[in-house]
Amino acid sequence: MIDFETSLDKYAELIVKVGINLQEGQSLVMNGSSHTRGMPIEGAPLVRKIVEHAYKAGAPLVDVLWDDPEVAKIRLRHSSNEALANYYPEWRTKGIHQSLANGAALFTLYATDPDVFKGIDSEKIGAEQQAASIHFAPALDIIIRNQTNWSLASVPVAGWAAKVFPDLETPDAISRLWEMIFTLCRLDRPDPVAAWKEHIADLQTSAHYLNERQFDALHYTGPGTDLTIGMPANHIWESASKASTAGITYVGNLPTEEIFSTPHKDRTQGTVRAALPLSYSGTLIEDFSVSFEAGRAVKVAAKKGVEALEQLIKADEGAAFLGEVALVPQSSPIAQTGILFYNTLFDENASSHIALGSAPRETISGGENMSDEEFAAAGGNHSIVHVDFMIGSSQIDIDGQDAKGNAIPVMRQGEWAFDA
Amino acid sequence: MIDFETSLDKYAELIVKVGINLQEGQSLVMNGSSHTRGMPIEGAPLVRKIVEHAYKAGAPLVDVLWDDPEVAKIRLRHSSNEALANYYPEWRTKGIHQSLANGAALFTLYATDPDVFKGIDSEKIGAEQQAASIHFAPALDIIIRNQTNWSLASVPVAGWAAKVFPDLETPDAISRLWEMIFTLCRLDRPDPVAAWKEHIADLQTSAHYLNERQFDALHYTGPGTDLTIGMPANHIWESASKASTAGITYVGNLPTEEIFSTPHKDRTQGTVRAALPLSYSGTLIEDFSVSFEAGRAVKVAAKKGVEALEQLIKADEGAAFLGEVALVPQSSPIAQTGILFYNTLFDENASSHIALGSAPRETISGGENMSDEEFAAAGGNHSIVHVDFMIGSSQIDIDGQDAKGNAIPVMRQGEWAFDA
Repeated sequence: MIDFETSLDKYAELIVKVGINLQEGQSLVMNGSSHTRGMPIEGAPLVRKIVEHAYKAGAPLVDVLWDDPEVAKIRLRHSSNEALANYYPEWRTKGIHQSLANGAALFTLYATDPDVFKGIDSEKIGAEQQAASIHFAPALDIIIRNQTNWSLASVPVAGWAAKVFPDLETPDAISRLWEMIFTLCRLDRPDPVAAWKEHIADLQTSAHYLNERQFDALHYTGPGTDLTIGMPANHIWESASKASTAGITYVGNLPTEEIFSTPHKDRTQGTVRAALPLSYSGTLIEDFSVSFEAGRAVKVAAKKGVEALEQLIKADEGAAFLGEVALVPQSSPIAQTGILFYNTLFDENASSHIALGSAPRETISGGENMSDEEFAAAGGNHSIVHVDFMIGSSQIDIDGQDAKGNAIPVMRQGEWAFDA
Repeated sequence: MIDFETSLDKYAELIVKVGINLQEGQSLVMNGSSHTRGMPIEGAPLVRKIVEHAYKAGAPLVDVLWDDPEVAKIRLRHSSNEALANYYPEWRTKGIHQSLANGAALFTLYATDPDVFKGIDSEKIGAEQQAASIHFAPALDIIIRNQTNWSLASVPVAGWAAKVFPDLETPDAISRLWEMIFTLCRLDRPDPVAAWKEHIADLQTSAHYLNERQFDALHYTGPGTDLTIGMPANHIWESASKASTAGITYVGNLPTEEIFSTPHKDRTQGTVRAALPLSYSGTLIEDFSVSFEAGRAVKVAAKKGVEALEQLIKADEGAAFLGEVALVPQSSPIAQTGILFYNTLFDENASSHIALGSAPRETISGGENMSDEEFAAAGGNHSIVHVDFMIGSSQIDIDGQDAKGNAIPVMRQGEWAFDA
């Protein structure tokens, strides 16, 4: 095992050079997840290393937005729904939007205790999240239109580590989670940057095969699942590695094991059972399923946290429609750990998944340059939210259907069923 | 000794109720010192308590700006003077200004390791500070014009505590500094709020005496000091307790032991030797003196840190002129501790002092409603900086001079020399 400081430094370097691919003279905005909350102060050791690598790479300014989940919790506890919906420090989201519009790159630290808002009224959480999403929408639009380079990575926080490794003392759980992150980000390889290039090439080979096929729909079958996802004409399967419209190649997620495209928003039909719980807005939604009719989520059920799921699909009109379909083989290193991470960045790379909400523009040919109306007419979904949930497992088969209705195996028992 | 959690809670309550005097329905912005840097993440335990009391007092939004001195240091280390001068996250200062202009109150956490930027080129620090000051100027204008209620208080950070108590291990130094802060903020009294009202009344009695006298000048004599400070017509001596133009009475500094007014910017003459070191922009300026001609600081000398002092007086045109004169008796509780705090909030309340830079508008009658030109014509100074330094000690005598040149004792050996 390489020592912690060295691994931390390599991780930060990977994030700046491979993830963000920050350019000389390009500024960097560093923010937290949940769109508009800053980075938790527990993330300071990694954040400082990223800041250092960003300045070394020639950034004229690294703008670091911090936040404290405890402060967010105090606000939720003591505020009315009205105050949460109507008061928002909008100059922060305006500032992020302005920086990105001026060409800055974005780093998002995704590090959340999945139980952070346990016990707090889900309507309050929903009101605050909706206000945040509305204010963040212009910045999200730049990301969805792929106009700048960005990346997302995680850092252990105490509550999260304790949830993943409930049998360990918190400091040990944090150390164990760091080890997992370092390994799954290939930092134990002699040359992590080269290892990443090889891995990305493999993902792009699978994407290429599916792009050639241009299936009309994907059909998922398994226990509790019989789901048909219609695909739009001229859809594109992508890996997390892509070039922004400004021509900068970046890897949006670290780690990443998925290839993804967009469903046609109006052509999802049937029921899907989630394979893993979903942590949304500080609430854990467990053992749930969603039924679709003509693209719309018309029914949800969950053993726990159903209110949060109901809040999610009514966040706005587009929140009840799909905006992403992603394929991950069960042999992926993250799936092989057998660990439930309660963190979308890891769990989505352990399992095939779909997302409610906005579709990435570049997954329909020419999408970056379409108006909202044109993108919708092409089948692309628009929403203030984008929330992944996991549906893949070794019990799931997926067929591709061509326009004539012929079925061609894409996955069997969670593994690729074609030779690309 | 009351337990730590209880004292911390009382301190936060004092800050919200007596310091800021936050009104129901009034939002609060919480920022760090150095104008535009957020609060150090080490301050989280106090910050969370203040946030809680603010929401309980009816704030619709508490907007908390964090920062990390390590991140600031990394930027200074890796950036050119040009980048530091030209790149600034201006939307933050615009946001603070907009919130204050909309009626929000301001809390400033003043908690800095005086050696935080030790070893970093003072020109770099100067470039960054100047950019910050320029961007913060519109918000500072609201504060100087006394248009909203605000307060400033401190929290121990490791580097600061270690500097104040160099013989203690850091955790013990932090505990000791907390004890000092709690005691000097009168939190050991049975009713701290009542104790504060009585103390403020005493300060106002002294201010009233000097306001009646309307001295034409103050003459300071002592070792290395022979300084005459001309006072403007219709000057007003204030305590830290005052009413904003919106009619909200607040206490701008916790703790406070001073009464203060403004010099006439063009009528300071002679030389003053500082009684204590000055921590400015992360550099400690030691054993220094400043000579004035017709108000302007024309010569500075220092045993250590003279570059920082030179940077300070050329921050802008007004930075070389005085904007505050303040009187503190040596019998003040802070002076009685005999401790050098390396923190202006404490050290300025242990010693009579003066400040280079902007003058508080309300210290000249009608100043809040004057244009910049009218305020300057009345003798008030304008600058992007306001930096106090300590000149009072038991070796200093101060006389008030009336228009005919008669001298009347104001302080002898650092104590009040009049019966108010």
